[in-house]
Amino acid sequence: METLIHNVTIYGEEAPFYGYMTIKDDTIQSIGKGDVSREMMKGALKIDGKGKWLIPGLINTHGHIGSSFLRGAGDDLPLQTWLQTVMWPNEAKFDRETVLAAAELSMIEMIRSGTTTFLDFYHLAMPDVAELILDRGVKGVLGRGMIGLCSKEEQDQKLQDSLSLYDTYHGADNGRVSVVLAPHAPYTCPPDFLKRIADAANNRGILLHTHCAESYKEVEDSYKEFGMHPIKQLESIGFFEQPALLAHVVHASEEELEILSKNDVRVSHNLISNLKLGSGIAPLPAMLEKGITVGLGTDSTASNNTLDLFEELRMTALVHKGVAMDPTKITANQAFKLATSEGAKAVGLSDTGVIKEGYKADFVLIDPNKPHLFPNERMHSHLVYAVKSTDVTDVFIHGKQVMKDQQLTTIDQEKVLADCRNQLSKLM
Amino acid sequence: METLIHNVTIYGEEAPFYGYMTIKDDTIQSIGKGDVSREMMKGALKIDGKGKWLIPGLINTHGHIGSSFLRGAGDDLPLQTWLQTVMWPNEAKFDRETVLAAAELSMIEMIRSGTTTFLDFYHLAMPDVAELILDRGVKGVLGRGMIGLCSKEEQDQKLQDSLSLYDTYHGADNGRVSVVLAPHAPYTCPPDFLKRIADAANNRGILLHTHCAESYKEVEDSYKEFGMHPIKQLESIGFFEQPALLAHVVHASEEELEILSKNDVRVSHNLISNLKLGSGIAPLPAMLEKGITVGLGTDSTASNNTLDLFEELRMTALVHKGVAMDPTKITANQAFKLATSEGAKAVGLSDTGVIKEGYKADFVLIDPNKPHLFPNERMHSHLVYAVKSTDVTDVFIHGKQVMKDQQLTTIDQEKVLADCRNQLSKLM
Ligand SMILES: [Zn+2]
Ligand SMILES: [Zn+2]
Repeated sequence: METLIHNVTIYGEEAPFYGYMTIKDDTIQSIGKGDVSREMMKGALKIDGKGKWLIPGLINTHGHIGSSFLRGAGDDLPLQTWLQTVMWPNEAKFDRETVLAAAELSMIEMIRSGTTTFLDFYHLAMPDVAELILDRGVKGVLGRGMIGLCSKEEQDQKLQDSLSLYDTYHGADNGRVSVVLAPHAPYTCPPDFLKRIADAANNRGILLHTHCAESYKEVEDSYKEFGMHPIKQLESIGFFEQPALLAHVVHASEEELEILSKNDVRVSHNLISNLKLGSGIAPLPAMLEKGITVGLGTDSTASNNTLDLFEELRMTALVHKGVAMDPTKITANQAFKLATSEGAKAVGLSDTGVIKEGYKADFVLIDPNKPHLFPNERMHSHLVYAVKSTDVTDVFIHGKQVMKDQQLTTIDQEKVLADCRNQLSKLM
Repeated sequence: METLIHNVTIYGEEAPFYGYMTIKDDTIQSIGKGDVSREMMKGALKIDGKGKWLIPGLINTHGHIGSSFLRGAGDDLPLQTWLQTVMWPNEAKFDRETVLAAAELSMIEMIRSGTTTFLDFYHLAMPDVAELILDRGVKGVLGRGMIGLCSKEEQDQKLQDSLSLYDTYHGADNGRVSVVLAPHAPYTCPPDFLKRIADAANNRGILLHTHCAESYKEVEDSYKEFGMHPIKQLESIGFFEQPALLAHVVHASEEELEILSKNDVRVSHNLISNLKLGSGIAPLPAMLEKGITVGLGTDSTASNNTLDLFEELRMTALVHKGVAMDPTKITANQAFKLATSEGAKAVGLSDTGVIKEGYKADFVLIDPNKPHLFPNERMHSHLVYAVKSTDVTDVFIHGKQVMKDQQLTTIDQEKVLADCRNQLSKLM
């Protein structure tokens, strides 16, 4: 079936232009400038874009959607206090039902804020989350989080679970679900476990994903334990001999960035989470100068406290200018690419994140007729510096509409909120 | 006339509580916990808050609403290029009509995002802006911007205009308009002109407001020209012998902050603008440790690019944690006070910015029944880290409702947008 979306301003590969797009099944078939001909209007399902902006859906390259109930549970605390009094005691009470309720709540939040692909890194109920993704029409990259501070048998079981998630779901529904191998971090996984995981990834060509160099203390501890920076340590055990995506990389010098660049290692930049936890500010401009592929991520709502990638996008464009005292750092166009095409590359999706023939039809319509977007000709600037995620009106994933005029089409929001209240009361 | 707002969770001076509030004319008459009695329900105009959050309206302590047409006109440019190719050539074309259209557009944006008081610093049509404020039911603190790079006659005329604005409008409608004296900056006003302005302020007890220490270059130039930091230079000419509010103060050491503290000089912290222009990041935690009164400001949409003070609030709470690598810096509660009660003090309004008996009835209702605010019991956290300005549903200023269920009651939004498009086309 073919769909034609016309009367839109399209954020394509270059400058935005007024035009139309056709979709066949889950794929962008063509894009064109100007009005559509009478001929083209025949046959296809037509959607009048009403002068809205059509942009690629945003890509959230790192998060933990199962923990969304912890939004605002503990802010402004020192990291260890936060982990010991908020995160760990609460997460210990989570079960399959809490995780699924929180996951669906997170999907709502992400659809509403224009995110069409998200990476989810969690240790509970991942096959159920995969099924939920398939059913609700969203698009996910899943990693079963593995902490290796346990027996070898338990480590093996976690790796086995991860591989079985991969075997069952990787590539499902034409790539709407994909799977990565996700050891938690170099400081929570002993080197031999990391090595077994890396070997398994290498054997099957699976993307690796882990947290790395998030806090200064983590780097200090790595020097104490291994005599080297965590990035160097990962390199030394062969972790970068297959594609890998590192979340955070807040504390890294030129030397470590060089290692990432040389090995084509990708980075998920989680600016708001890094700020909120007081971890620091990652050297994003230096990463981009070295040609490292960087996507944006929200991390969880426990440390953000939203899943709004437009916020992340704006913050990324703003904060690095201030830190560098240089207004030309991270331009609007650069930032937008991090949130879309670069993010897709970072999570291993080569057919996603660009409005272009042959790419997956993952896109978002934005209503520019708002006071805060006046003068609304300046789409390119406003998408980064002025738009609010609530300006998103319509969301399509793999050609299927999951939000229409701000109404979700595949999720019953009131039912999910009621379910979340039920699940939350169990935890109190 | 008395109004009763019940069934709300109130952000009072301490922890939020469920209760009600009564208003008489423009003033908060009482607040109480729990449900209202049948007795209280008699007589008064009753508003059912439907479980919403009731918070003080936000205070924007620095901006230039007349230049809102320049939103997105030039981003990511070096400061001098931006000033010379974007700001100055465009502003030179502005007239009374463009400024008034842009001012009303800005009022819409501020009402919609929960701002109930704004400071406006501009050089054109200020009496007209005062009339517009009075007519539209909003609340403004106005300063006729004075650049002193001109003849003494022209300087005197500008000061005369400023004093006449003060005489005509200061305190109008029970304080809904107030007036400050606003020399543009120490680097655009020769010392003798600054001194004359300060003397005039001193004679009549008028608040002084100026830009100061925004960029590193400005500080360097001050050392070259005057052999001292701009703050020291202002002190040396007696600028701090009456109440003063400085916008920015990005580049200041302990020594200069000590001068501000000692003289009770207030600061308007314009974080997003400072980031976007690459000016740097002001030492906010040090200011607060020294007991300096700090409010938040957006500056103009040309360097922000919104007037959304909830964005400013969240960024302020987040960025300083990251810079200090300390998650306890600028807590949610501290940040919220900067955006409300402290902001009111900064602009000289002693009866504004707190939900408290005897204070002006400037408040906002927020709908917490949103997926991104779940679990919505955590109001205190969510107001800073999760709320979106579009969650604001109702806005009251001096007891009068200017937005009801997201519909403006005193401004015709479509007419303003149409007028803005007309005015903008004149400039192209
Ligand atoms: Zn994480
Ligand atoms: Zn300014």
